[in-house]
Amino acid sequence: MFGTRAIKGRAMTHAETLDRAVRAIEERSYWSAYPEHPKAYGDEAPVAGEAAFRDLLGKAFATDQAHDGYLEVAESSPFGIELGVTYPATDVDSVMSAATAAMGAWGKMSAEDRADVCLEVLDRLAASNFEIAHSVQHTTGQSFLMAFQAGGPHALDRALEAVAYAYREQKRLPDSLTWEKPQGKRDPLVIEKRWVTRPRGVAVLIGVSTFPTWNGYPGVFASLAAGNPVIVKPHPGTILPLAVFTRIAREVLAEKGCDPNVVQMIVDTPDRPVGKDLVMRPEVGIVDYTGGSAFGNWLEENVTHAEVYTEKAGVNSVMLDSAADLGPVFQNLSVSMTMYSGQMCTTPQNLFVSESGVTVDGQNVSYVDVVGGFTKAIGGLLGDDARAGAILGAIKGTDTLDRLADATGLGNVLLESREVPSEEFPGATIRTPAIIEVDGSSDAFRNEMFGPVIFVVKTTSTAESIELARDAALANGAITWLAYTTDDAVLDEVIDAAVDAGVSVAFNLTGGLFVNQSAAYSDFHVTGGNAAGNASLTDPAFVARRFVTVGIRIEP
Amino acid sequence: MFGTRAIKGRAMTHAETLDRAVRAIEERSYWSAYPEHPKAYGDEAPVAGEAAFRDLLGKAFATDQAHDGYLEVAESSPFGIELGVTYPATDVDSVMSAATAAMGAWGKMSAEDRADVCLEVLDRLAASNFEIAHSVQHTTGQSFLMAFQAGGPHALDRALEAVAYAYREQKRLPDSLTWEKPQGKRDPLVIEKRWVTRPRGVAVLIGVSTFPTWNGYPGVFASLAAGNPVIVKPHPGTILPLAVFTRIAREVLAEKGCDPNVVQMIVDTPDRPVGKDLVMRPEVGIVDYTGGSAFGNWLEENVTHAEVYTEKAGVNSVMLDSAADLGPVFQNLSVSMTMYSGQMCTTPQNLFVSESGVTVDGQNVSYVDVVGGFTKAIGGLLGDDARAGAILGAIKGTDTLDRLADATGLGNVLLESREVPSEEFPGATIRTPAIIEVDGSSDAFRNEMFGPVIFVVKTTSTAESIELARDAALANGAITWLAYTTDDAVLDEVIDAAVDAGVSVAFNLTGGLFVNQSAAYSDFHVTGGNAAGNASLTDPAFVARRFVTVGIRIEP
Repeated sequence: MFGTRAIKGRAMTHAETLDRAVRAIEERSYWSAYPEHPKAYGDEAPVAGEAAFRDLLGKAFATDQAHDGYLEVAESSPFGIELGVTYPATDVDSVMSAATAAMGAWGKMSAEDRADVCLEVLDRLAASNFEIAHSVQHTTGQSFLMAFQAGGPHALDRALEAVAYAYREQKRLPDSLTWEKPQGKRDPLVIEKRWVTRPRGVAVLIGVSTFPTWNGYPGVFASLAAGNPVIVKPHPGTILPLAVFTRIAREVLAEKGCDPNVVQMIVDTPDRPVGKDLVMRPEVGIVDYTGGSAFGNWLEENVTHAEVYTEKAGVNSVMLDSAADLGPVFQNLSVSMTMYSGQMCTTPQNLFVSESGVTVDGQNVSYVDVVGGFTKAIGGLLGDDARAGAILGAIKGTDTLDRLADATGLGNVLLESREVPSEEFPGATIRTPAIIEVDGSSDAFRNEMFGPVIFVVKTTSTAESIELARDAALANGAITWLAYTTDDAVLDEVIDAAVDAGVSVAFNLTGGLFVNQSAAYSDFHVTGGNAAGNASLTDPAFVARRFVTVGIRIEP
Repeated sequence: MFGTRAIKGRAMTHAETLDRAVRAIEERSYWSAYPEHPKAYGDEAPVAGEAAFRDLLGKAFATDQAHDGYLEVAESSPFGIELGVTYPATDVDSVMSAATAAMGAWGKMSAEDRADVCLEVLDRLAASNFEIAHSVQHTTGQSFLMAFQAGGPHALDRALEAVAYAYREQKRLPDSLTWEKPQGKRDPLVIEKRWVTRPRGVAVLIGVSTFPTWNGYPGVFASLAAGNPVIVKPHPGTILPLAVFTRIAREVLAEKGCDPNVVQMIVDTPDRPVGKDLVMRPEVGIVDYTGGSAFGNWLEENVTHAEVYTEKAGVNSVMLDSAADLGPVFQNLSVSMTMYSGQMCTTPQNLFVSESGVTVDGQNVSYVDVVGGFTKAIGGLLGDDARAGAILGAIKGTDTLDRLADATGLGNVLLESREVPSEEFPGATIRTPAIIEVDGSSDAFRNEMFGPVIFVVKTTSTAESIELARDAALANGAITWLAYTTDDAVLDEVIDAAVDAGVSVAFNLTGGLFVNQSAAYSDFHVTGGNAAGNASLTDPAFVARRFVTVGIRIEP
């Protein structure tokens, strides 16, 4: 058996874990139920997990879900290994009718019992962290460590956080109540009241190619905890991680005596997409989506019969005004701007620097020296092939390579992209980022250039830097800002602009925390305040509409 | 000066009132800050309030809002008195730019300070309860007592409830926090965090003709408390109550040193409606709407750039299975089904009775006797003109009269509608309801027949009654159900169906509580579970998306 014992040093019951998670969302201080260090999962886990992953390759993915043969898919590995997994073929009618059938009993379970099942699924996923890490690595192009941490424990943190929010919101109402309204000298009006929560409807996850579990779990687990059956439609190029999730979730559901069709998967291919048919079904009550803006906007505009939570594109910015020391600034930026080749929705894309330079420890450092130092820091960090590979991961998607190729025409190339060879994976597609210099009149930096393209934007002043970052965020969305300043007035101006633009903002990161990372229980993800989407991950707004409350009044 | 002293027996500060309201939404037990008895407002209030109302008639409505002349409108009184009020003319561009300008400072105020202003507005509205009551009566056709209670204190209860929810949701985050993540043997990651909430955008209220304040205040005050400026667009036929609200809100805003354009009004006429232009503006972040399904559905399908809260049509049902005594049942039903001539969104329209009759205190009472008793109870209650007038109020809108005229062709007429003369208001349009008998195969009862039309639906069994009620609710929405049963199994079946259909349900009401009434702090209004809309009035789901949270992280 799996369960909590698979993780070192933990022996909390699910109820205790849930209570602790509820406390974490109230306090917003650091907490995690799932260690991020691979060693915490025992000595045998790495080998067993890799073997489990290898055993999935080149064959039909085993499932107990009803299906009609297997589908050849367009999934491929950015590291160049042959995946060759085929997936159970099904259709929208089949999964929708099975989901609808599963909703009754799942929706009628108590919030406690559903949370208990969800937490058991999370523990089983934790026990399969290595299998999932390899699946994430080889479908998304993330380095192994990122795939392990972001795809495993950090995704589980976000999932548990979502369960805690959904659970707490459902438990806000008293179980029952005798309501008495005084009537002056007459007898009071007395009525017995209670409330029943029920699911919104069938929930659909439209998965993303880069962080299928981290971005997928919050919506899935919020929906499950609130009583909704979930249909998972993975990105056609990144299927395996969510297939493993679906398998594990169904195993736990069956063991707990629930209908395993509470979680189902439907797989498609780029030439025969099923996403639109799926979400337009009237049974659908919830859609969670992470991915490009085009489909996200389509969902927001067309799926008006369901709650839609999106995370779309964003133009993330760094404003460099002043600092105590540029060395640690560049150290932090060179990691945050290159990690996973800029394929995180939180990666800073633009570095705004005033042409008048930067104040460093009271002294002016010229624009040319600042930009030179930044470029050198990135070049240096990525100069060694092995280190570069570990940081950059591999490139997912030919679109991203195309963007990289086109980027050199957009401005003055400060650093060219280069192909990085990999000893471990000779077929891997690894590129260092191109650094392109533009000025504030350019349109290039105003749009998301997902992937390894960094813009240095030469502005007339820090005030213009802030204004350009805000305009880009308001026009095309943004998820993160990072600013460096030792000037309190500038700090306040950046905060005002961030609040205005609806962008989370960090200041003066020089150590081990990178702006790309948002912490479960503490940091919101997308604010809902700009075009980057509304999937706040996770707060009451993210869960409150996933269930419906029906009031019952009985005259005694 | 007004303030809390205008209301007898109350001397709570706004902060105390807010705290008490927050406790009320948690406990969901009875509480009210605004007495529903007219006498509680002092001996002079009735005369002064009526004089204030009379003083509004036949002239241009005074305002400090920028305007370009005055608009002749299509407002008229169902009681037949001449209103003759003209309203400040403005346009969408003007109100939108003023609202946008007002948003900055209002959005930056603390949640406490905004709540304080909101509570002062509510106290001022309470002090004007009589002026508002007459305005509501003569624009909507409600009886004076209903206009006073529903239009005044009950609307204020709902408003304060909305402020309490919005306040509490904004205060869920710690003000600031030092976040520490352990790093094994290395120093922990330490970061200072805080969060800023900001408004979603300009809020628009599209008012309803029947309960302009009760249905309008919750969205308005939730939006205001969350930092959004509000543009009020009253129904073209019922303007005056929201005009008085707007005047009072602006007075308080100005006194408090806020931009009065935090609340503005734009009035239109049926031949030149501005609602669509208004809500499609990109500045709009929130739309609250109560009214017919056609425009409500249009809003839900087209306003995808904003949060939309709707209350639309519903087909409310009564299922009569069994009772201890039919007398009190009919007494309760004859009021709830005729009050304000069925022009409440919560009025029961259909009475389902099995052809096999009803079990009363263990004995079978035949279908014919049950229906005869029900018809007689309604005929008796409304036989006296003065009493009928007090219960029925007057008919708002010629559509409703047309529906009433057409209803006799839909089935077997058990009781004909009659015109009720009024001594007080000779020009009043007062009608008793028509009672029409149909069977389960009819389509007539499946759609909302807003106004004084009651269907008695003859079914084959209580099971069919429940099924028909559920089908109608799922197809066309429903807000309330009422069932009479002494059988626990039937009670459970009705609850299951109500949960399935997303309809609030009451049982065995025979006393002074009517199913039409939902209590602030305790009863939800629309569940969001069917086509009747999603304006839950009021819960976290109703407020959580009215603001945006921006996280700020600062490396110390």
